[in-house]
Amino acid sequence: MKTLKKITIIGSGNVATHLAKALYREEYQIDTVYSQTKENAVVLANEVDSFPIDKISQMDVTSDLYLIAIKDDAIADFSQQFPFKDQLVVHTSGSISMEVFKENGFTNYGIFYPLQTFSKDKKIHLDEVPFCIEGSNEKIEADLIHLAKNISSKVYAIDSEERKKIHLAAVFACNFTNYMYTISEDILKKNRIDFDILKPLIQETAKKILKNTPQEMQTGPAVRKDQNIMQDHLDMLSNQKDYQTIYQLISNQIKQGS
Amino acid sequence: MKTLKKITIIGSGNVATHLAKALYREEYQIDTVYSQTKENAVVLANEVDSFPIDKISQMDVTSDLYLIAIKDDAIADFSQQFPFKDQLVVHTSGSISMEVFKENGFTNYGIFYPLQTFSKDKKIHLDEVPFCIEGSNEKIEADLIHLAKNISSKVYAIDSEERKKIHLAAVFACNFTNYMYTISEDILKKNRIDFDILKPLIQETAKKILKNTPQEMQTGPAVRKDQNIMQDHLDMLSNQKDYQTIYQLISNQIKQGS
Repeated sequence: MKTLKKITIIGSGNVATHLAKALYREEYQIDTVYSQTKENAVVLANEVDSFPIDKISQMDVTSDLYLIAIKDDAIADFSQQFPFKDQLVVHTSGSISMEVFKENGFTNYGIFYPLQTFSKDKKIHLDEVPFCIEGSNEKIEADLIHLAKNISSKVYAIDSEERKKIHLAAVFACNFTNYMYTISEDILKKNRIDFDILKPLIQETAKKILKNTPQEMQTGPAVRKDQNIMQDHLDMLSNQKDYQTIYQLISNQIKQGS
Repeated sequence: MKTLKKITIIGSGNVATHLAKALYREEYQIDTVYSQTKENAVVLANEVDSFPIDKISQMDVTSDLYLIAIKDDAIADFSQQFPFKDQLVVHTSGSISMEVFKENGFTNYGIFYPLQTFSKDKKIHLDEVPFCIEGSNEKIEADLIHLAKNISSKVYAIDSEERKKIHLAAVFACNFTNYMYTISEDILKKNRIDFDILKPLIQETAKKILKNTPQEMQTGPAVRKDQNIMQDHLDMLSNQKDYQTIYQLISNQIKQGS
């Protein structure tokens, strides 16, 4: 039984769009889509059979849930302006505490955080995305978990402190990993070698940690303590001091941990 | 037409095992398997219908190719001891120059480098593994490319300088990436959160660069220049100065690049 049937979506970016569409597919009613940019609200509203608005004063008071999927640093400000302080609100951020709602006078609130990296034009199977859920009371948490389970098979009750730790870990596992890819592409590009040659290695590196811990799967000159190769690599990076610093620092870490 | 029909495998580790089996499946004859540890030679030889040896003096002179798949820092020493200096030898290392053979008196030699991370008990589809091939002359290079194409669809002619650059790039894309996973697992473990929650994110991060450049796919607080979140993260890492240093360094790099 759906307790949160009628939903207003705040935002029109990647997360808002993915969630709105998934909920719409599961026959939730998307009452309104709010975006400061009317055109964006219209685009998303059209896709989920909803009503686009661009002013907070136009907000519909009758929704069961207001799902705030906007930039992290806009959440506090929006919460302050939001008029219906008794209504149920959630945000989708990994790093903003649930307290932001309490501080802005809300009584019913929670977190609805999909732990994934969303990009425009890149399809995501939400069913496999872990959702970290928290509620300001047990009933709300149960309702939000129920809602999340309608769109994902991986739903976790996670409090705000844990969620911040997960988000920090995700920065290393996703953002910094992607930056390692960027460096590797840059090194190849400077030598006119196509990045494609590294793609199978990158895929395999990610797959290996599905069945073993990353520590067990560590390979390379640093874990072998192969000083000659590491020195060769540092020499090759002599024109790129920033990469050289990263190479040295991470290699030392791997050596110490091994 | 196979010109290199009879092959001796030097080594019995992950790379030697994967290559020997793949060549055997393609009906190459594995004359002998050499390993300093007799038991290891026996295990692999049994799997590829071959003859195990543990002394260089037992080496068969009649092979068309001697494929050296041993540790990087053992290649020079082995090459020196190898008795048949007119025979065709190759090694499988990403970081050792082809010159190691010339320096040790060989006249026919090359490189047969599979660009992948091999682990025990983890199956690899060699067909999708890029092979970087180099030969001491055109005929040898053509023969080695032909051989590689029998076990992989991704075969590249790559000279020793390029190969070293590729290997350096691979350290960032594979070894350092895996270390980012290790940090993320460690952060979660210290907070009693199961690493499983990050696995879909890690897979998606790797998949995203198949169709877009990593630079285009960069997400997270650093590329958004979200100073509050970054400060929160640095504070959370105050008990782990090494991770804090890495966080700061890579975030600064991402900020500058964006």
